[in-house]
Amino acid sequence: MDIVLLGSGNVATHFGKALSHAGHRIVQVYSRDLAHAAVLADALNTSAIDDLATVDPAADVYLIAVKDDAIGQVAAQLPASLKGAVVHTAGSVEMNILALQARTYGVIYPVQTFSVAKPVYFSEVPLALEASDEITYTRLAELAASLSIRVFPCDSRQRLALHMAAVFACNFTNHLYAIGAAILREHALDFDLIRPLILETAEKVMEHQPEDVQTGPAVRHDTGTIQKHLAALNGRPDLAALYQLISDHINHPQVISSK
Amino acid sequence: MDIVLLGSGNVATHFGKALSHAGHRIVQVYSRDLAHAAVLADALNTSAIDDLATVDPAADVYLIAVKDDAIGQVAAQLPASLKGAVVHTAGSVEMNILALQARTYGVIYPVQTFSVAKPVYFSEVPLALEASDEITYTRLAELAASLSIRVFPCDSRQRLALHMAAVFACNFTNHLYAIGAAILREHALDFDLIRPLILETAEKVMEHQPEDVQTGPAVRHDTGTIQKHLAALNGRPDLAALYQLISDHINHPQVISSK
Repeated sequence: MDIVLLGSGNVATHFGKALSHAGHRIVQVYSRDLAHAAVLADALNTSAIDDLATVDPAADVYLIAVKDDAIGQVAAQLPASLKGAVVHTAGSVEMNILALQARTYGVIYPVQTFSVAKPVYFSEVPLALEASDEITYTRLAELAASLSIRVFPCDSRQRLALHMAAVFACNFTNHLYAIGAAILREHALDFDLIRPLILETAEKVMEHQPEDVQTGPAVRHDTGTIQKHLAALNGRPDLAALYQLISDHINHPQVISSK
Repeated sequence: MDIVLLGSGNVATHFGKALSHAGHRIVQVYSRDLAHAAVLADALNTSAIDDLATVDPAADVYLIAVKDDAIGQVAAQLPASLKGAVVHTAGSVEMNILALQARTYGVIYPVQTFSVAKPVYFSEVPLALEASDEITYTRLAELAASLSIRVFPCDSRQRLALHMAAVFACNFTNHLYAIGAAILREHALDFDLIRPLILETAEKVMEHQPEDVQTGPAVRHDTGTIQKHLAALNGRPDLAALYQLISDHINHPQVISSK
């Protein structure tokens, strides 16, 4: 398919490369910053634009991969008459933000974390799909299937839940790694010491449900160890508060309330 | 070396198999429950005992791998005159709990999570070492080096910090996976959808420091998305409280205080 890539950041780059690799044609790369668009456009052997009025109206898909709060603006500034569907890639933005003029539209949300530093095997990234109508869904499903073996329908409410789940299991998890690293640093110990444990913890839930493999002092009701840890954290009330709240939640996942 | 294994649970089993595999001789396996001791003793081709008075006094190492709050009792019930060192394997128990009678003693703490279901490559498990005296340290270092390529000195305070770091980065992390799974389940979505993300998040910190690869709405100060998530969690004040506390902590890791 012919695709206009709207955005030139991390997600746009990963999509652009995967789409190009799958045999699609990237017609243009847009960014407000032309030099930034040009970097990705060069890599994809196509042209860069910084004016949404100059978007090619004959493309099959207009893929918006910009910051969440800019998606609406980009969609609104696109020419009124476009051949293809306007699609965004965000977890927590409703599809209906694209419901402008007489267009078809949809969402392709990749359930993965992309970084510049590390390549991602796009072919195994789950792609959550939503579309304004059945014909558009079929077209987007075809496009998504050329990128990944894991394509599934997902409405805007489910997608928000999926993104939230990812925030807990990925973003927050990484912050717990950072807390572990900080505690080690304070005691002249290297983060490398818990790297095997971190990997093992993740690998364990590849085949098990996390509830079934919970370990540690909280789930064992080992109050002696919990008290020792809280005492050792007495200079860090921030960490003690997190320790207490998460430990309580492990044992009473429903009853903890916000104060 | 000749080793008496005191305990027959998960950690004792992993140690027993690794020690045996490394060519050491397991002289006896002790448990309060003789039948339980017998299962491991059979697997290790040795004898089971349920009376600490009958422990072989000529072994090189008495490895205590029982619940934290039982370590002191087991150590106290051992015969007064033993040839070898008495060693425990716990993260948050001071070495001095073993300072009884005229014995030598120490700690070998494996920084890994052991489950019955999944084999662990002991050879890469970091082993934290502490001992009552230099000669014992050297002996234990020799033993540890036969099990793992990663052996390092670690006093009781450091070991407590290491265990705490592991609780944050492993036990608490697994609970965040469980929260993710629960959110997905509530929206008819499969946990499998975020498994690649979980693995990628762990793999990313194998080569990076977690602070350097933090992603998500909190670190982006994306208050729009954070508000959407908190609104979607309005039926779950427990999760909203966790979401808020961890998000705040990502941006102000020092100033959050326990209330």
